[in-house]
Amino acid sequence: MPRVSEAHLAARRQQILDAAVRCFTRNGFHQTSMQDVIKEADLSVGAFYRYFKSKNELIMAIAGTKISEVTGILDHLLTLDPMPPLPVFLDQVISQVEATLAADQTVRIAVQVWGEATHDDEVAEVVRDVYGRIRERMVRIAERAKDSGQLPADADAFGVGAAIFGLIQGYILQRILVGSVNQQIYVEGVRSLLGKV
Amino acid sequence: MPRVSEAHLAARRQQILDAAVRCFTRNGFHQTSMQDVIKEADLSVGAFYRYFKSKNELIMAIAGTKISEVTGILDHLLTLDPMPPLPVFLDQVISQVEATLAADQTVRIAVQVWGEATHDDEVAEVVRDVYGRIRERMVRIAERAKDSGQLPADADAFGVGAAIFGLIQGYILQRILVGSVNQQIYVEGVRSLLGKV
Repeated sequence: MPRVSEAHLAARRQQILDAAVRCFTRNGFHQTSMQDVIKEADLSVGAFYRYFKSKNELIMAIAGTKISEVTGILDHLLTLDPMPPLPVFLDQVISQVEATLAADQTVRIAVQVWGEATHDDEVAEVVRDVYGRIRERMVRIAERAKDSGQLPADADAFGVGAAIFGLIQGYILQRILVGSVNQQIYVEGVRSLLGKV
Repeated sequence: MPRVSEAHLAARRQQILDAAVRCFTRNGFHQTSMQDVIKEADLSVGAFYRYFKSKNELIMAIAGTKISEVTGILDHLLTLDPMPPLPVFLDQVISQVEATLAADQTVRIAVQVWGEATHDDEVAEVVRDVYGRIRERMVRIAERAKDSGQLPADADAFGVGAAIFGLIQGYILQRILVGSVNQQIYVEGVRSLLGKV
């Protein structure tokens, strides 16, 4: 029964990742041992190590799953025709950030991964790759905004895409770490800053 | 000789903080032990613990020193008359980020501290406080931009300040973690996005 087996493997894998997310959120990546995750996932050591060999593998699997969701959403937003005004686009992306914050703690783990990437080359490479792929989408948004007359014809789409991505990263950091900011206040701020609808 | 003694204490304290910055940058906050910092600072255990009792104390002292520098620079920019266009202001702030990146590794440590703040209440409170103080300056910049006609008269200065702060945080993250972005590209991108000089 290969199909049952595959479904079983996927479910087991997800069970482990969910347990890891709970542990990392509660105690942080470093204060969590593999033993903690195994216990939280309620598996035997042998069963566990068939799926993941290290904490880095766990964190990369969590990041990978989440990022596929994010790029999927961005790719959908990229198909909208006509292209919405940039603040509306940003509002929709931030709605997704809020939905993730409400559903689980992976956004908080992302901030831990950023810290990790400053001194671990393996994590740094994954971060460079996944955030590079997200920024790529932002650059395409900038290109569409140029085409629809929302940006000057000579605007550099890469720079604008980086700035749009920066606004989203800044929202995440302030939402999680500084407080007193919410989606409505921030998007209204962006709207005024851009002087656009 | 109380004055000599004070200077001596300050120099010793700085010697420890410099050693801690080197250790945290090299191996990360968690993989660094107090022993590592003591060894790097070339001090006796007894001498060391007169200054700092824990890694959290070290990280907070590093953050505190750096943040005073940052708020000092922002307060200076806030006195400029006439108020420069917002992209020029942002360019000047990013110049400071670049100067810090060239001089030492405290910006990288800041990203580690963000990760730490997601699961350590003591660190979280310090982060909330210091970034709250920086954002306060951004809000005052937004107020001045309103007064000088750069923003709509009904713009919410808090939201705009949060967005400007977001652009800076986003720059730091991409500069350190994603790459392919530099001051000129980013500021040009912001300029096009804002549709302003």
